[in-house]
Amino acid sequence: MIEEAGAIISTRHCNSQAGEPCVAALARVERTDFLSPMCIGEVANVSAEITYTSRHSVEVQVNVMSENILTGAKRVTNKATLWYVPLSLKNVNKVVEVPPIQYARKEQEDEGKKRYEEQKLDRLETKQRNGDVILPVINPDRQTKEPHTVGYSQSSLIHLVGPSDCTLLGFVHGGVTMKLMDEVAGIVAPCHCKTNIVTASVDAINFHEKIKKGCVITVSGRMTFTSNKSMEIEVFVDADPFVDEPRERYRAVSAFFTYVSLSKEGKPLPVPQLLTETEDEKRRFEEGKGRYLQTKAKRQAQMQQQAAQQ
Amino acid sequence: MIEEAGAIISTRHCNSQAGEPCVAALARVERTDFLSPMCIGEVANVSAEITYTSRHSVEVQVNVMSENILTGAKRVTNKATLWYVPLSLKNVNKVVEVPPIQYARKEQEDEGKKRYEEQKLDRLETKQRNGDVILPVINPDRQTKEPHTVGYSQSSLIHLVGPSDCTLLGFVHGGVTMKLMDEVAGIVAPCHCKTNIVTASVDAINFHEKIKKGCVITVSGRMTFTSNKSMEIEVFVDADPFVDEPRERYRAVSAFFTYVSLSKEGKPLPVPQLLTETEDEKRRFEEGKGRYLQTKAKRQAQMQQQAAQQ
Amino acid sequence: MIEEAGAIISTRHCNSQAGEPCVAALARVERTDFLSPMCIGEVANVSAEITYTSRHSVEVQVNVMSENILTGAKRVTNKATLWYVPLSLKNVNKVVEVPPIQYARKEQEDEGKKRYEEQKLDRLETKQRNGDVILPVINPDRQTKEPHTVGYSQSSLIHLVGPSDCTLLGFVHGGVTMKLMDEVAGIVAPCHCKTNIVTASVDAINFHEKIKKGCVITVSGRMTFTSNKSMEIEVFVDADPFVDEPRERYRAVSAFFTYVSLSKEGKPLPVPQLLTETEDEKRRFEEGKGRYLQTKAKRQAQMQQQAAQQ
Repeated sequence: MIEEAGAIISTRHCNSQAGEPCVAALARVERTDFLSPMCIGEVANVSAEITYTSRHSVEVQVNVMSENILTGAKRVTNKATLWYVPLSLKNVNKVVEVPPIQYARKEQEDEGKKRYEEQKLDRLETKQRNGDVILPVINPDRQTKEPHTVGYSQSSLIHLVGPSDCTLLGFVHGGVTMKLMDEVAGIVAPCHCKTNIVTASVDAINFHEKIKKGCVITVSGRMTFTSNKSMEIEVFVDADPFVDEPRERYRAVSAFFTYVSLSKEGKPLPVPQLLTETEDEKRRFEEGKGRYLQTKAKRQAQMQQQAAQQ
Repeated sequence: MIEEAGAIISTRHCNSQAGEPCVAALARVERTDFLSPMCIGEVANVSAEITYTSRHSVEVQVNVMSENILTGAKRVTNKATLWYVPLSLKNVNKVVEVPPIQYARKEQEDEGKKRYEEQKLDRLETKQRNGDVILPVINPDRQTKEPHTVGYSQSSLIHLVGPSDCTLLGFVHGGVTMKLMDEVAGIVAPCHCKTNIVTASVDAINFHEKIKKGCVITVSGRMTFTSNKSMEIEVFVDADPFVDEPRERYRAVSAFFTYVSLSKEGKPLPVPQLLTETEDEKRRFEEGKGRYLQTKAKRQAQMQQQAAQQ
Repeated sequence: MIEEAGAIISTRHCNSQAGEPCVAALARVERTDFLSPMCIGEVANVSAEITYTSRHSVEVQVNVMSENILTGAKRVTNKATLWYVPLSLKNVNKVVEVPPIQYARKEQEDEGKKRYEEQKLDRLETKQRNGDVILPVINPDRQTKEPHTVGYSQSSLIHLVGPSDCTLLGFVHGGVTMKLMDEVAGIVAPCHCKTNIVTASVDAINFHEKIKKGCVITVSGRMTFTSNKSMEIEVFVDADPFVDEPRERYRAVSAFFTYVSLSKEGKPLPVPQLLTETEDEKRRFEEGKGRYLQTKAKRQAQMQQQAAQQ
C-alpha cells in the first residue's frame, strides 16, 4: 500500500503539466522502521506527500497510521521515503522531465537536495556491489547442516511474473517485489529462532533494473548477523528473462531486513547466535555488526538530542 | 459473484445470434436486500436467469443460496436484479442489439417493460444529480470533530485500476467497484456506532460511466441518516484518468448502503443518532429519512398483502 | 476448481446421514490429461459426480468444460478422478464411515471396487518410495551448469502456509498444493526448452500426509525424462512444521507432470534432449522412459479398441 500510494501521487504529479504521458517507477525506498504492528480489523490510513523533485526524480514521504475504529485508538506504524522516476508511456527506456514543486521555505529545497545527493551516491555504491557474479543460494539444508548455521535457514523462492504483478508499462510493481522479499526473509528468520517474529526495519532498497512480465524471479534470503535480540537477513532478487530474450540472469534488487523474535505474549526474546562457517560468512557477520552498531549509535544520538530539546 | 453470474449469462445471451461479438457491461443494480449472512465454510449457490430484454439492455435476476454442507441447511441470502448493456468488442462505445427472449406469459413481458421504464427514469434522475460539482470528501477527522457527526466517520480510499480489475474490454468489472464501495461503507458505519455491523440493503446503483484501466478511483462514504436501528451511508466513486488523457475527474457511480449495528451475540443494537452540523447535512438527513419511511411503508404493505393472501 | 468441486460434493455426501460431522480430505488424484487449454475470457463449467464409495473413501469424477460465451463453442478440457477420505470435525485423526451410494447397475459397483483396489495398491507403493531420506533440491544453477542438464533447470519454491490456504480443519487444501506443484513444474519446463509450454498430463498424485497451518512447505521440481516432444518433471512437496512442533521435515506429496513445448502459433515443437550426468539421473531417465512407453502403449490400445468399435 505504501508503494501504491507513492506511485499514484508521483504519477499524478508528473502528468500534471502538458507533456509526454508517463508512469512513475519505484527507484529506491529509504531505510524504513516498523514502529508498531497492524492488527486484523484495524483500518490503515496511508497518506503521501511529495517532498522534493529533481529534474528526473520525485521524493515521496508516506505515513501509515493504524486505527482501531471501535476504540478510536491510533498508532503510527510506518514512515517511509520513496524515490520515483517517471518513464514515458510510449518508450519505457526514456525518463521524462519532472515538473518542479513549490517549497514553502528555501531550506526545504536545500534539505531535499542534500537527501537527493546522498541517495544518488548510495545507489551508485550498491550498483557496483550488485555487479558481482551471482551465486545461487542453495535451499535450506536441515538434514546435513547444524541448527543456527547460515545454511540451515537460508531459503529461496521462485516466481513467474504474471500480468497482475505489473504496471501499465509491463514491469513488476516495486511493491510486489518488496512483498516477496519480506516473505522470504519472514521464512528465514523463524527457521533460525523457532519462534514467532516481527519485522523491525528494512534497509534502503535500490531498484536497479526493471523486471519484465514473463521473467522468472528468484528471491533468496540468508542470515548475515544476529545481535542479542535481532536477526539481520540479506535478501536478493535475481531475474531470468528466459523465454523472450536470451539475456543472462541479473540482480535486480537487494536489501537487508531486520527481525525480532517474539514470545507468544508478544515480548521480545533472546535470539540464538548465528554460527558462521566459511570466511565469507564471517566477513558478512562483521559487516552486519558494523551496520547494527552504526544504527544503534544513530538512534542514541537522536534520543539524546530529543532529551536535550525538552 | 452476483455480478459475475449476471455478466456471464447476459454476454452469452447477447452473442447467441449471429451478429457483432459483444461483452455485457453492468449498467444498474436494483435495490438489494441482504436477508441472511454467509458463513465461513458454507457453499454459495448463485443462479441467474434472464427475465426481460429491451432493444439495448438485459435484465437478470440472480439468487444466492448459502448451503451448510455439514448440516445440509440452506438459506436464501440475496436476491438481486441487474441490468446489462452489450458493448461491441470492436468498438466499446457502440451498444449492439439484444436478441429478444421468449416469455411464457404475456404479463411477464408487460411487467418487465414496466420495470424497464421505471429504471430508465431513475437512471436519468441520478445522472442529473451526479452532474453536480464534485467536492472531495475529506478523510475522517477524529481530532477536531465530535463523535457522531458526519465529519467524524466519513472515509475514502483510493485504488489504482490494474489489469486484474478489468473485463476483456479494459474496463473495471462492476463487481469490483461494488466490493470497494461496500468496503468504504463498512468502515464508515463502525466508526459511528463502535460495534460490529452487517449490511442490511443496498440502494439501486447506477453505473453511469465506464472506468478504464490505468485510472485512479476515489471511493468516498459519508453517513446521511440514522434511524433507531439503522445507518444510511452514501458512497461515491470518482475516477481520475490521470495518465492517458487529460480529462477531468468524473463521478462514475453513487449509491446508498444501509447497515445495522450488532451486539457480540449477533442481536441488533440501537444506533447513536447522527449529529448534523451544516445545512447540506440537515437536508441529506431529511432526504434519507424520506427514503427510510418509504421503504418501511413498502415493506409493511407487502407484509399486509402476504397476510391477506394466507 | 476441480479439487474444490470434489471436496464440496464428497463433504456433502459424507454428512448426508446422521452421524459425526466431517470434512472430506483429498487422498489421491488419478492420472489426469489436459485435453485442451482454457483461454482468458472463457467460462469454466466444472461438474462433479460420486462414482464409488468404499467404507472409508469416496471416488469423485470431475469434468471441466470450457465455454467461449462469445461464440458459444464448448470444449472438454479435463476429466479427473479424485479420492477423498472423511475426517471427523472433532478429531482430525479419525476417519468416519461413508454412507454407501446406490448404483444403477451391478457392474458399476464391481468396476468401482476394482479401481479402489488398484489405487490402494499404488498408494502403498508410493508411500514406501516416499519414506526415503529427503535430499534438498538445489536451486537452478545457470552459471556453472550446462544448458539441458538436470541441474540447470531444477527449481524450488518455499511457501508459508497461511489460514486462507487451509480447510476448516486447519490443513492445506489439496487444490492449493496442486497449484503450487504446477507452478514449479511450469518454471522448470521452459527453463529447459526456452519456449512456451503447456501441461499435457499429471500422473497420479497421492496425498500421504496432511500439511498443517504454520508449516513451511518446499515445492521442488526436476526434469527426469524427455521424449521428442515432451518433458517429464518430478515434483515433491516437503513440509517443515517449524514453529509449533519440533518434528522433522517430511515428504507430503510427489508426482510427475508432463509438458509439451509450443511455438508462438501454438504448434508442438521438438524438445532438446535432457543431459544426464549422475547415476541417479540416468536411472530416473530410464524409469521415465518406461512410464512414457507404457502410457503410449495404453493410448494406442485404446485407439485401436475405439477404431474396432466403429
